[in-house]
Amino acid sequence: MEEKSSVSPMVLVHRPPAIDFIDEPLSHSFTLLYTHTSPVPIPHFLSSHAASVRAVVSVGRLPMTAEFISNLPSLEIVVCASVGFDHVDLDECKRRRIAVTNAGNAYGEDVADLAVGLLIGVLRRVPALDRYIRSGQYTRLWDYPFGFKLSKKKVGIVGLGSIGSLVAKRLEPFGCIISYNSRSLKPGVPYLYHTDILSLAADNDVLILCCSLTDETQHIVNREVMETLGKYGVIINIGRGGLMDEKEMVKCLMEGMIWGVGLDVFENEPEVPEELFSLENVVLSPHSAGMTLGSLGNVTEFVLTNLKAFFSDQPLIFPVQLD
Amino acid sequence: MEEKSSVSPMVLVHRPPAIDFIDEPLSHSFTLLYTHTSPVPIPHFLSSHAASVRAVVSVGRLPMTAEFISNLPSLEIVVCASVGFDHVDLDECKRRRIAVTNAGNAYGEDVADLAVGLLIGVLRRVPALDRYIRSGQYTRLWDYPFGFKLSKKKVGIVGLGSIGSLVAKRLEPFGCIISYNSRSLKPGVPYLYHTDILSLAADNDVLILCCSLTDETQHIVNREVMETLGKYGVIINIGRGGLMDEKEMVKCLMEGMIWGVGLDVFENEPEVPEELFSLENVVLSPHSAGMTLGSLGNVTEFVLTNLKAFFSDQPLIFPVQLD
Repeated sequence: MEEKSSVSPMVLVHRPPAIDFIDEPLSHSFTLLYTHTSPVPIPHFLSSHAASVRAVVSVGRLPMTAEFISNLPSLEIVVCASVGFDHVDLDECKRRRIAVTNAGNAYGEDVADLAVGLLIGVLRRVPALDRYIRSGQYTRLWDYPFGFKLSKKKVGIVGLGSIGSLVAKRLEPFGCIISYNSRSLKPGVPYLYHTDILSLAADNDVLILCCSLTDETQHIVNREVMETLGKYGVIINIGRGGLMDEKEMVKCLMEGMIWGVGLDVFENEPEVPEELFSLENVVLSPHSAGMTLGSLGNVTEFVLTNLKAFFSDQPLIFPVQLD
Repeated sequence: MEEKSSVSPMVLVHRPPAIDFIDEPLSHSFTLLYTHTSPVPIPHFLSSHAASVRAVVSVGRLPMTAEFISNLPSLEIVVCASVGFDHVDLDECKRRRIAVTNAGNAYGEDVADLAVGLLIGVLRRVPALDRYIRSGQYTRLWDYPFGFKLSKKKVGIVGLGSIGSLVAKRLEPFGCIISYNSRSLKPGVPYLYHTDILSLAADNDVLILCCSLTDETQHIVNREVMETLGKYGVIINIGRGGLMDEKEMVKCLMEGMIWGVGLDVFENEPEVPEELFSLENVVLSPHSAGMTLGSLGNVTEFVLTNLKAFFSDQPLIFPVQLD
């Protein structure tokens, strides 16, 4: 590894065009390049700046393939502003001894908060009744369909990791009865464990999807699970769109096979099945679960701290283990 | 008091036209009359059924004045399907030895749940982002204004009675820092007490109005309180519309003097200030905080139980003390 310099190293920001929260704070300490403003194709752009780029700040999980990385021979560190880092070719990073960091669990609390917000939103029809008032229909007291109680609802958490646990903790004082399904029973957890999602669906009123998307969890909520959950069933998805069979979910909603859904994620974002736009028992959210100004502020701190630490030989926070 | 009969006593249901949840269950055990379907003015209607009506079921807090009651000389009990009973002339009931019952705290959990739903809805822009998706604007990831974190928010509860306490308990695991203002300090409560609402507003990010409406609390949230809360301030009102100076609230929102509001109640329901319909930092709810199918089911139970108990000389549940 070449000697590090503390004077304004060249940092490439690799981000979706709309997410610019990190630009201004970084610009005070680093010379910035951006992939999204490149007038030429990205490989061409990368190779023309090849020698100078020593760090990449990866925002919004845009792919960083081995080819992308191979175009940057001076690259020493990839700082992810995301919790996930599976969009980065870690084998290539390991081979090149490029350091990788992520955002720890910066978004966990916000994601759990929104899960609860979506659940109350669906059960109590919050956005639907807000629409009802804004459209001028509120001309008579209590002349609209009433919602459902949260208290005593049986809630099944799919994936009791850090976010699932935060969701469960928040729902306890609402009088919800919590159980969960996870790869294995979590020792010391006070909630009932179900070995599979069908058993979880059979025993609960609500499913909240908090697990990561893997080959095993792809479409873990299929038609059979929804039929088992039943016609008063509610599903909240703050995990990944691919956890649900979205086509079957739309059918189940339209057939009244389940009662409602609260969705922060979709199979092909930003595409949302248009059939959902006219349904009243559905709350839609644009992958905003982790996106608060507060969390973005925290993440900006982590990114800045890591870049500064790296270029002054200090320890990194949230390093990704590549061994 | 005349001797009670257990065979189908005549019960007058005094309710708003749209709230019919109690009719069918009551009809199995009682002969029902309704004020809202009367083709003649209510005093005339009452006096023409005067002798037969032995019980009134009061739904939706329609006034029961001394005059109303005086038209029913056989009236023995008023069963309120509401928590409040200040719409009933209690002096007249006491004088006539008419029993009065209410609905206990049947709606408390639901009201507290909606308070949290409105708070998450405002801070995280849940209905606004749902509208954004439904209107077809979600064509690019993360291209919308982000919301605010709930975690570490300082929340001031105005009125730490049964509902205020339920709200506080729910917000604790979200990492909110709770304080309150009440007529007096509540011994044994772990939250900081403020002697007045200005001090509460100065020290908090959020105010949640949970107190009842009295001469003292009328417009307790005036312009000075909103200015003190400040431009990132959020107010949730699940109490009564009259707790806020609604005209000043609209002005403060439009001037950016406070950040947002979540309102279940309004000064002149069902009228809602139209200026609010186009504001994105506002969540509107049609006095639905206590109205869930579950709570209405519970209340129906209480009403039936009380009527049956009364007409068979059994003890009442939730009797209102008239002494």
